[in-house]
Amino acid sequence: MQLRFLGTSAGMPTRTRHVSALALTFEGQRRWILIDCGEGTQYQLMHTPLSVARLDAVLITHIHGDHCYGLPGLLASASMAGRRAAMTIVGPPAVRDYLEAVKAATGLQLGFELIHVDAATLVNEPLTLTDLAVRATRLSHGVECYAYAFDERHVEASLDTARLAAEGVPPGLIWGQLQRGETVIDDQGRYLCGADYRLSPRTPRRLVVAGDNDTPALLTDICQGADALVHEATYTEAVVKRLGTDNGHSSAARIAAFAERAGPGALILTHFSPRYASRPGGAHHIDEIEHEARAHFTGTLMLAEDLAVYELSRDHTLQRCE
Amino acid sequence: MQLRFLGTSAGMPTRTRHVSALALTFEGQRRWILIDCGEGTQYQLMHTPLSVARLDAVLITHIHGDHCYGLPGLLASASMAGRRAAMTIVGPPAVRDYLEAVKAATGLQLGFELIHVDAATLVNEPLTLTDLAVRATRLSHGVECYAYAFDERHVEASLDTARLAAEGVPPGLIWGQLQRGETVIDDQGRYLCGADYRLSPRTPRRLVVAGDNDTPALLTDICQGADALVHEATYTEAVVKRLGTDNGHSSAARIAAFAERAGPGALILTHFSPRYASRPGGAHHIDEIEHEARAHFTGTLMLAEDLAVYELSRDHTLQRCE
Repeated sequence: MQLRFLGTSAGMPTRTRHVSALALTFEGQRRWILIDCGEGTQYQLMHTPLSVARLDAVLITHIHGDHCYGLPGLLASASMAGRRAAMTIVGPPAVRDYLEAVKAATGLQLGFELIHVDAATLVNEPLTLTDLAVRATRLSHGVECYAYAFDERHVEASLDTARLAAEGVPPGLIWGQLQRGETVIDDQGRYLCGADYRLSPRTPRRLVVAGDNDTPALLTDICQGADALVHEATYTEAVVKRLGTDNGHSSAARIAAFAERAGPGALILTHFSPRYASRPGGAHHIDEIEHEARAHFTGTLMLAEDLAVYELSRDHTLQRCE
Repeated sequence: MQLRFLGTSAGMPTRTRHVSALALTFEGQRRWILIDCGEGTQYQLMHTPLSVARLDAVLITHIHGDHCYGLPGLLASASMAGRRAAMTIVGPPAVRDYLEAVKAATGLQLGFELIHVDAATLVNEPLTLTDLAVRATRLSHGVECYAYAFDERHVEASLDTARLAAEGVPPGLIWGQLQRGETVIDDQGRYLCGADYRLSPRTPRRLVVAGDNDTPALLTDICQGADALVHEATYTEAVVKRLGTDNGHSSAARIAAFAERAGPGALILTHFSPRYASRPGGAHHIDEIEHEARAHFTGTLMLAEDLAVYELSRDHTLQRCE
């Protein structure tokens, strides 16, 4: 399961960070999922192997412009490139209203159907996308805003190859039959029962990707059993204090302290205020976010970068791979 | 007068071309004008010395997405960056409807006023922007679409310094008074009349920037006396014939042949179909556009590139300077 960040800036872009967008891909699947679609997302995609022809669904966390202003252009380009397969759009009802308003005002006609799904329905009833079950949780951000949880639906059973070797069952067709749980007779006339050679399936992976949110505790339930949480850390506490408001956002300290309690092994921070520069010389440096978060979170901590790719492995560890 | 292309692709972007946007700047002016604002324009601006704080007006040629989907994000970022000065938005009434629909649907609040001007009013009554008189002409493109003509309003008179030297009038305050047309008495008691020493002012520059258009002849009047015409050349004739339609656009041959008759000394082509690659290996190469245009136009011909800067000098010549 790979997380490819296309934009990691809050509100407005910088020279090194586009506004919010995150692509989710899966082993062996060419179909993929996009979470948020800030302006310029279709430009960032040209620097990846991903194609809008294979884009299964777009999930919008909330209707603020830095999370959705790239959607009309992305859809228009997909249509011009010949896409005819329907696309699922998940989000608050405002997303549908926004797209319909833009289509009407600008005469945009798409060569494919948009299947709108109200994110609120995913709070109680998971939606299946590619091979994932997707649930939603309402957050706190002024406008209707959601976190999405992605659960693997099918986890393959692995085969106890050590036992097979010890019992003198050579690799071949029989191994596949045993892995599928079948009972077979081998060339020595032995009855072999699949159940005896299948190892317990590993635990399915769970990823949670949150929209903007000033109340991390709202994520407590959805984070149970999660391997990784992607959450905004728009400011440091020092900046929140100086501004006199968090503007509906979380500080690095607040989300890191929550993650430490809630238990995901890995925390990826994103959606940084443009005041935090990636290079020396700015009023603030992105390292301030990292230092503040590390003081509260002892797990695997990543600060997302544009076009960086993070892999959530089957062994539930997260690492950066590009 | 400088033309800085921010996007030169038709319909959808490519790896080397953003969708349409063009910045106009003027000698000695920090205020500037934007013509069209396709998605990603605010990203391109970060690669220029231009600031949205000094953006005087945005002129939209027509409401198609590749010419306006960057506008909400650009306005939002200008507001977040602290802009409070009103901004003029010129275009068909659909532009106002589009912006109001996006603002309503996404809760976008700007910290400055938008002064909407219906482009149709500029057909008969020029609008003054920075130091330019801007007129409009209706084009043919399915939706309401315009070309904008930019005329210098003030042209400085130059002084006949050779005559002043020959008559023994030394450089000094008197030269400035004479240049302003005043009558003065010099230290030899001579009456000197400004009108006798001012050379005829140079002809004001005129630039025409057209939106998408399948009927170049509609530009005949507005191109009279123009130094340069910026016009789309979406396809070559070979591609138009194969598609069986021009989709409301002009071929390189058609606009070049028009320009040859209509008389602008320079023609800048832009808005190229993504099928024309800038590097070898594509189905078509951008050189095909150039070859076709050169066969019909004998003046200065340029094919716009993203982030390229073209200077229209006081001597009415056009050249690429970046």
